[in-house]
Amino acid sequence: MEHVLILGGDGYLGWPTALRLSNLGYNVTIVDNYSRRELCSSLKIHPLYPIPDLIERSKSWFSLTGNDIKVLISDLSDYSVVESLFCGSVPYTWQNSNLKFSIPSSVIHYAEQPSAPYSVKNAQASLFTLVNNLSVTNNILWAIKSHSPDTHLIKLGTMGEYGTPNIDIEEGWLDISHKGRSDRFLFPRQAGSIYHTSKIMDTDLIWYAVRVWKLKVTDLMQGPVYGLLTDEIKLDPSLKTIFNYDEIFGTVFNRFIVQAVCHHPLTVYGEGGQTRGYLNLKDTLQCVLKSIQTPASSGELRIFNQIVETFSVNDIAGLVKSVGDSRGLDVKINKIPNPRVEAESHYYNPSYQGLLDIGLEPTFLTTDVLSEIFDEVDCYRDNILSSQFIQGIKW
Amino acid sequence: MEHVLILGGDGYLGWPTALRLSNLGYNVTIVDNYSRRELCSSLKIHPLYPIPDLIERSKSWFSLTGNDIKVLISDLSDYSVVESLFCGSVPYTWQNSNLKFSIPSSVIHYAEQPSAPYSVKNAQASLFTLVNNLSVTNNILWAIKSHSPDTHLIKLGTMGEYGTPNIDIEEGWLDISHKGRSDRFLFPRQAGSIYHTSKIMDTDLIWYAVRVWKLKVTDLMQGPVYGLLTDEIKLDPSLKTIFNYDEIFGTVFNRFIVQAVCHHPLTVYGEGGQTRGYLNLKDTLQCVLKSIQTPASSGELRIFNQIVETFSVNDIAGLVKSVGDSRGLDVKINKIPNPRVEAESHYYNPSYQGLLDIGLEPTFLTTDVLSEIFDEVDCYRDNILSSQFIQGIKW
Repeated sequence: MEHVLILGGDGYLGWPTALRLSNLGYNVTIVDNYSRRELCSSLKIHPLYPIPDLIERSKSWFSLTGNDIKVLISDLSDYSVVESLFCGSVPYTWQNSNLKFSIPSSVIHYAEQPSAPYSVKNAQASLFTLVNNLSVTNNILWAIKSHSPDTHLIKLGTMGEYGTPNIDIEEGWLDISHKGRSDRFLFPRQAGSIYHTSKIMDTDLIWYAVRVWKLKVTDLMQGPVYGLLTDEIKLDPSLKTIFNYDEIFGTVFNRFIVQAVCHHPLTVYGEGGQTRGYLNLKDTLQCVLKSIQTPASSGELRIFNQIVETFSVNDIAGLVKSVGDSRGLDVKINKIPNPRVEAESHYYNPSYQGLLDIGLEPTFLTTDVLSEIFDEVDCYRDNILSSQFIQGIKW
Repeated sequence: MEHVLILGGDGYLGWPTALRLSNLGYNVTIVDNYSRRELCSSLKIHPLYPIPDLIERSKSWFSLTGNDIKVLISDLSDYSVVESLFCGSVPYTWQNSNLKFSIPSSVIHYAEQPSAPYSVKNAQASLFTLVNNLSVTNNILWAIKSHSPDTHLIKLGTMGEYGTPNIDIEEGWLDISHKGRSDRFLFPRQAGSIYHTSKIMDTDLIWYAVRVWKLKVTDLMQGPVYGLLTDEIKLDPSLKTIFNYDEIFGTVFNRFIVQAVCHHPLTVYGEGGQTRGYLNLKDTLQCVLKSIQTPASSGELRIFNQIVETFSVNDIAGLVKSVGDSRGLDVKINKIPNPRVEAESHYYNPSYQGLLDIGLEPTFLTTDVLSEIFDEVDCYRDNILSSQFIQGIKW
């Protein structure tokens, strides 16, 4: 029974990943320090609906399926915590079974402060983002190097590391010829927030560990993810994953759909030409699973661009308006001054072939897919606080 | 009277920089947390001779010249400390004069954990290096952005950020054409230690701050520095700067000269073809001064490769042997297994024109220059502890 660690397993992606892998028979351990919950609380941010804590959710999963997801509530920026996960001395916060300890064969690393707006809020938030994210990555790399160099690290990067360059975005690497000589380098990275910059730093550190220590790493350069339901989550409302629609943690998809549902104009930042690659939550789970099943080799930093299609902000506003209007919502679109420093009209042509090559079957954003999210959000429309859409963070 | 902050002013380069700028009439404030002293102490590392603390050295400088160097012993990874330097609330540890507070026009940022071997010693040392170095850089950038966006930041980077690519190393930037389109990016970086990787991360962060906040930054990509004496240091023995020759903090020049003086074979790592750019301490002072005098523009990240000539390790061993032999030392060269993971034979062709263009007059490594260092080291030959040459850190 392969043992998989899911770091940051309380999050929007971490929890559905844990459910999926547990459902498929993996021995799953989640580690989280609840920092997202604490940030939401201290910033007075309310997700669309309350989410039970990890112990409650794991108990619920066990009672529904008989599958055990072990939980450790602890801070991975402490090296001794990370080391314990590889040495059999884990002080689990909750586990049902008494499975004999086994060294994890894969580690899925979601354990980062994930909000771009939060990271640029002030010096302290920026410092927390950099220190937290780099510390966790440092500790995982050293623990794998020291205790289990065959463990496959699957790291969630972000397409945002690349920014919006004026050349085609390749999958992680670029062959460069210069003055008659050539070499292969990481594709140039220049990001639009401190958070995204912390992910560039992760990549710098991981590339060192792969080159010098010969670790096995897959870096999934993910675009923004949308969607709420997976086959496992559909089993019971107690298994839901977090849904933020606020300025700090909400993505543009979530914010627009919630705005449409509560008759608030969609708040397009600036001209709305900002184009990015997106994917469905279901596809994130596929990508992680395919990566586990085809591990990187020793000394290989395998980088995939984890998106399935691209949209501009105007495209997304148009899609949400179209589905909203068909539901009788009469959706308005409102262009507001852009709080971010970013190009509002730019070239954007990323490659994303690698995950298709290892078996990803993409879920495209159809009217039906959007309608399903509308249905979910609609159940909680009484919870919507429109004051959360704009909280005044300037880049 | 222009006010200049020297962060990390207790170090090998920081202190001579402070003396030079003070001598030239700048109002100089040094900040340091003595972390290098504490690391030396905890690792049982002994510099070649003891160095008085900053208060004693500043008092000595004042009594010799009447010039005041203000000192703050404090930790720049604490944002409130950095902020105080821009807001007039600095709790100086020592100052002689009572100059009215003025916002610094330039900040020289040397305040980093500078040892590559220490950074790869273990998980905790790696974590300390990353967190310390990134925290200080984060805090400086935010303080400048928030309180004094016209302040010119002069950051000490390292040529080690580039690694040893198979293409010519340009000064910080590279124009890339790809599939018929083109853009300009940071020159690709991939370093050989966690320390050097922390400097890549500094660059990532600084480039964000310059693009988005329009700060003024000069990044000096420095090679290893050699030399002990400057015009100011020659005034009095109490003004000396630190000299490490151990495996952790000593550079190859220092170690070889000390080994020659104490009749120990020069310890060449591996084949000795490792080639890097070097410069004299006197030239570091010139480069920093020229940078102050020609500040970067708002929104400009000006990058200079701060070296004046390149040598392989074998070249350096040969030069040290030649000067040592002429002094009757009969120097032996011993190739030992390389504790580092690095190319021992590689292409290396860096550009370094920018600093010459703003007035650097290079000091080349002549027999006389090397002999002067031998003379200094010879004065302290009874202090040499040959056990410090190799301390067993493996990359």
